[in-house]
Amino acid sequence: MNPLNVGLLGFGTVGSGVWKVLNRNQNEISRRAGREIRITHVAARAEDGSFARAQEQCRSAVIVDDAMKIVRDPQIRIVCELIGGTTIARTLVLEAIAQGKHVVTANKALLAIHGTEIFAAAHEKGVMVAFEAAVAGGIPIIKALREGLTANRIEWIAGIINGTSNFILSTMRETGASFADVLREAQARGYAEADPTFDIEGIDAAHKLTIMAAIAFGIPMQFDKAFAEGIAKLSSDDIRYAEELGYRIKLLGMTRHVAGKGIELRVHPTLIPAKSLMANVEGAMNAVLVKGDAVGPTLYYGAGAGSEPTASSVIADLVDVTRMHTTDPENRVPHLAFQADKLSDTPVVPMAEIQSGYYLRLRVLDRPGVLAEITHILADQKISIEAFLQKEAASGETEVNIIILTHRAIEKNIYQALAKIEALETVKGKVTLLRMEDLQ
Amino acid sequence: MNPLNVGLLGFGTVGSGVWKVLNRNQNEISRRAGREIRITHVAARAEDGSFARAQEQCRSAVIVDDAMKIVRDPQIRIVCELIGGTTIARTLVLEAIAQGKHVVTANKALLAIHGTEIFAAAHEKGVMVAFEAAVAGGIPIIKALREGLTANRIEWIAGIINGTSNFILSTMRETGASFADVLREAQARGYAEADPTFDIEGIDAAHKLTIMAAIAFGIPMQFDKAFAEGIAKLSSDDIRYAEELGYRIKLLGMTRHVAGKGIELRVHPTLIPAKSLMANVEGAMNAVLVKGDAVGPTLYYGAGAGSEPTASSVIADLVDVTRMHTTDPENRVPHLAFQADKLSDTPVVPMAEIQSGYYLRLRVLDRPGVLAEITHILADQKISIEAFLQKEAASGETEVNIIILTHRAIEKNIYQALAKIEALETVKGKVTLLRMEDLQ
Repeated sequence: MNPLNVGLLGFGTVGSGVWKVLNRNQNEISRRAGREIRITHVAARAEDGSFARAQEQCRSAVIVDDAMKIVRDPQIRIVCELIGGTTIARTLVLEAIAQGKHVVTANKALLAIHGTEIFAAAHEKGVMVAFEAAVAGGIPIIKALREGLTANRIEWIAGIINGTSNFILSTMRETGASFADVLREAQARGYAEADPTFDIEGIDAAHKLTIMAAIAFGIPMQFDKAFAEGIAKLSSDDIRYAEELGYRIKLLGMTRHVAGKGIELRVHPTLIPAKSLMANVEGAMNAVLVKGDAVGPTLYYGAGAGSEPTASSVIADLVDVTRMHTTDPENRVPHLAFQADKLSDTPVVPMAEIQSGYYLRLRVLDRPGVLAEITHILADQKISIEAFLQKEAASGETEVNIIILTHRAIEKNIYQALAKIEALETVKGKVTLLRMEDLQ
Repeated sequence: MNPLNVGLLGFGTVGSGVWKVLNRNQNEISRRAGREIRITHVAARAEDGSFARAQEQCRSAVIVDDAMKIVRDPQIRIVCELIGGTTIARTLVLEAIAQGKHVVTANKALLAIHGTEIFAAAHEKGVMVAFEAAVAGGIPIIKALREGLTANRIEWIAGIINGTSNFILSTMRETGASFADVLREAQARGYAEADPTFDIEGIDAAHKLTIMAAIAFGIPMQFDKAFAEGIAKLSSDDIRYAEELGYRIKLLGMTRHVAGKGIELRVHPTLIPAKSLMANVEGAMNAVLVKGDAVGPTLYYGAGAGSEPTASSVIADLVDVTRMHTTDPENRVPHLAFQADKLSDTPVVPMAEIQSGYYLRLRVLDRPGVLAEITHILADQKISIEAFLQKEAASGETEVNIIILTHRAIEKNIYQALAKIEALETVKGKVTLLRMEDLQ
């Protein structure tokens, strides 16, 4: 089957990420989509250097400076709008729809403000406008809301959906520094833009919240009625006082259905219980908590921005569109994600060959030299120690518990070490073995 | 358009949840699916009382005791298998497929063991076998893996995917009680079954892990090669020692692609860093952490079992199948989840009308009676106080900070109270107002 041709509009952070991931993972992606997805054209601009970058990186694509050429090219089936903003992007997206092309976009401002117009046009033309990347970057929250939670009356959604603000708040809390100082640091490290207004004033979060509310409650986009209060006026005193009271302050987007009244739609700094999962979403990460009447609370967490995380969502949309055009509808999504004839028979690794960290608890005689013997055996098996804990002997007892945490090691080496350790005269009974993962 | 007819096999916890949620939310679900989904037949058994329950609750359905009758009924388009087990369920599912019916199932054991056979049969017949409810209950993790993360090479998945075990481990950690005692409590409270073997020995988690690994890596089901070690042998000492070292013990399902070696597939108690989000998944909740090469880590959290959470996933699958049979493919999933002609124009609630908890920081003269004046004003506006914090005056200063947390109140009442409070002679400057949400 021929590749599906995609035209990329914009070659900034996200555009170059899409190119890179699509090429790096072409094999997996084709096996899942049932067809190769190929970016044949890229629109970029000379002024910001993206044209030259695209020419250098995208050898197999045609690079143009007029995005409209791509939108009107009959060979292009999907237009991927990654320019941003609400003017040129709107014109291009509407024209692509008029040309009968599917559109994939990461543009939250465009959808929050002109979504109703765009979706109506797409519906009339029978084309898809996919926008997973517009909300919460790499987190598949749009899919969860539109397809995963369809059984539910959604009661409310609370989202940490602006990574820049969350990074600033996390850093203010950890360091006690002022908003202005942390913002400067965030700008220096590339976490905040030179003009950070959209991020720190809650506008960006309000765009994303508007889109989620529309999907959750089946209402039109109403960005103009969203309330947005940012984090610029927060003092580090308030962050500290909140902490003392058992709370943390997060920039939260809240939308809630209030029976008989309507929909709350608001973004503002919010105290939430310090022990909640949401309060522990730190740095530039995003998370969305959704309360459905049947499922209860569900939470979705991941990178809310960045080149490859956002590309992950853009490409998921490309695969969605491709699957629609490739297989018969019943087999649209293969049972095991990969097309049935593309499964690979990868072997399962035997337990002796796995790698993990280990927790070892030993009962040993409380006498000098015991630990030296044990560590010597571990070192012989190339097992290095990460941490060590010795519990004092209870009065009158001659045996103590020692606990050893190891760095990652091969499990069979652990087995061999344990056999030798358990054979020591100073070690009593079997060693308790637990595995350990850092989840990094 | 006619309703889509569904036959329900099994009327236990999940089956009755599906009936209940589908009927309660029929309006939302139809607006999303584009068509009514109607359970016309229910198969239940006299022996366990489910037949009588179904007769009482499902007045509009035909109740039968022979599930095969439903499977072979030409008017049924979708068979919903909620019986469980790997014998009768296998026969029914294969026969439903042979009859050209779509199947929705929550049966992890069936798929982990016979999935390859079942999916091959379904592929040949061109029918869907949907199984969101088979893994992690209400969390839409199958959809995330099959559709949301298609751009990624999945590196590993770590899941807390057995609620019973997680409840027992959480309780052991909180109370210091032994495994045996906590298990008894869990059985009494209905969190563990009379025969808890599948849960506490890691078998149930290994079923779910097998399914996720197949989807993530595009490999066949290989449950027979999965390693499963349960929590029955864990001592409360180990839980305490792990805590001292900065870790928590969770029953984790881990699957990882190891270059050149294959796929690790293992369930066992695992130490993970106490500060990680996964370590803070408590009680009977589930969470799955997925590491993709492009998106990085993403986490999915929610109820892993229970009547309505599991029903949420079953119905999401029913909507998926229905959408496939209702609209033209391009409009399969409506842009805003609800069919375009089914959007409702719900008003946005003005900020003055919202309800929230509030954090108020005031600077007041350090003199008797000040607090009484303030609390009096709040009470007049029907605002009750949840917590209160007074910071000592710095030496030489005559003003102190006081912080008040309120219970939920209407925002306009807060505005009115603040206007009066700021007019007090003893209150200096503006009151700082932040909102507060308990996320419950």
